[in-house]
Amino acid sequence: MKVPRWKKAEFEEIEYEPKSIRELLKEMKNISELIVDLAYSAILFNSKEIAEEVRYLEVRMDKLNYDIRITAMLAARNTEDAEKMAGILQIAQASNTISNAAGDMVKLLAYKLNHPILPHLIKESDEIIRKMSIDEKSSAVNKTISELRISSETGVRILAIRRKSRWIYAPKGSVVLKKGDILICIGPEEGMNQLRELLKGKIEVLE
Amino acid sequence: MKVPRWKKAEFEEIEYEPKSIRELLKEMKNISELIVDLAYSAILFNSKEIAEEVRYLEVRMDKLNYDIRITAMLAARNTEDAEKMAGILQIAQASNTISNAAGDMVKLLAYKLNHPILPHLIKESDEIIRKMSIDEKSSAVNKTISELRISSETGVRILAIRRKSRWIYAPKGSVVLKKGDILICIGPEEGMNQLRELLKGKIEVLE
Repeated sequence: MKVPRWKKAEFEEIEYEPKSIRELLKEMKNISELIVDLAYSAILFNSKEIAEEVRYLEVRMDKLNYDIRITAMLAARNTEDAEKMAGILQIAQASNTISNAAGDMVKLLAYKLNHPILPHLIKESDEIIRKMSIDEKSSAVNKTISELRISSETGVRILAIRRKSRWIYAPKGSVVLKKGDILICIGPEEGMNQLRELLKGKIEVLE
Repeated sequence: MKVPRWKKAEFEEIEYEPKSIRELLKEMKNISELIVDLAYSAILFNSKEIAEEVRYLEVRMDKLNYDIRITAMLAARNTEDAEKMAGILQIAQASNTISNAAGDMVKLLAYKLNHPILPHLIKESDEIIRKMSIDEKSSAVNKTISELRISSETGVRILAIRRKSRWIYAPKGSVVLKKGDILICIGPEEGMNQLRELLKGKIEVLE
């Protein structure tokens, strides 16, 4: 059995990576906003794929929460600093609680795989979330998101891009897509299918 | 001192309102997605106004979690039903945990009011979240969101509308705005100011 990526991440030795409080907190904010959407989508569409991203982000969040505690302690030199840091750690802890709750939600998928748990919550008109990768032969490689007119042609919004082990959350139009990028997208099913054709290199442009 | 709306809601007698599991869960999903964004915004912009919405939604979520438990128990007639309902209550509980964590975050604002806690997280280019009400003399009254071309003219997206005690989450373009509606919006500051002028009746159209 292939060990899922989040599981591997879980058993890696935890090592403190020095980063600024600002960077750490910004990533924690981004993860907590994304993970709630992803967790519901995994449940609604019975998607093990999206559930795996949730588990991965949950593990990543634990790591960030650990790092931010260390950073905060090293940064606090007097009572005023320490008070400020206590507030920051409260926000970090709440973010971590949010991601753990999202993780708890998708655990349900581990033992209920044959049918969607909440199929009656999905309406045909609703937007769906999908994970898609960019093939090296796709004409989208090395183009910006706005150049490709993804949102205007398909109605699809890119929530996040996973590039190797790095994440780009809520990417702006100026972000250049690379081969191998994994996109987490939300939008209408039809537009999603059109975008998939582009990313697989089956069509040249969206129109 | 005026008692805030969420506080009033907290002390109202809890009474079970019969609703379908589908309706209850859909509202819980909507609240958990909205409340995380709102909590961070309240902290980032040091906004008591947005924090109050968070507290209100947190109390509302507690009520929904109570209602869904009762509804689930009344609906379960055999083991298969009960197993299904157990899964649904797990999702409901996770949603409630998310909203409590968001509530914990904004509690920080109660004792740190003089300066933003995380001002260094805000960049000028970032989108802001604001709460705006529609004046009765505004030309937006009784128009649909798409008719007003809010998103194309200002770049502002309406996250939710509060209409008296009811909420409309992620409203579609076909939703008709009413006087007294409270809009929770996200977007660039400039577009936000333009929209505010429209909603106050100071300009007639967005352009």
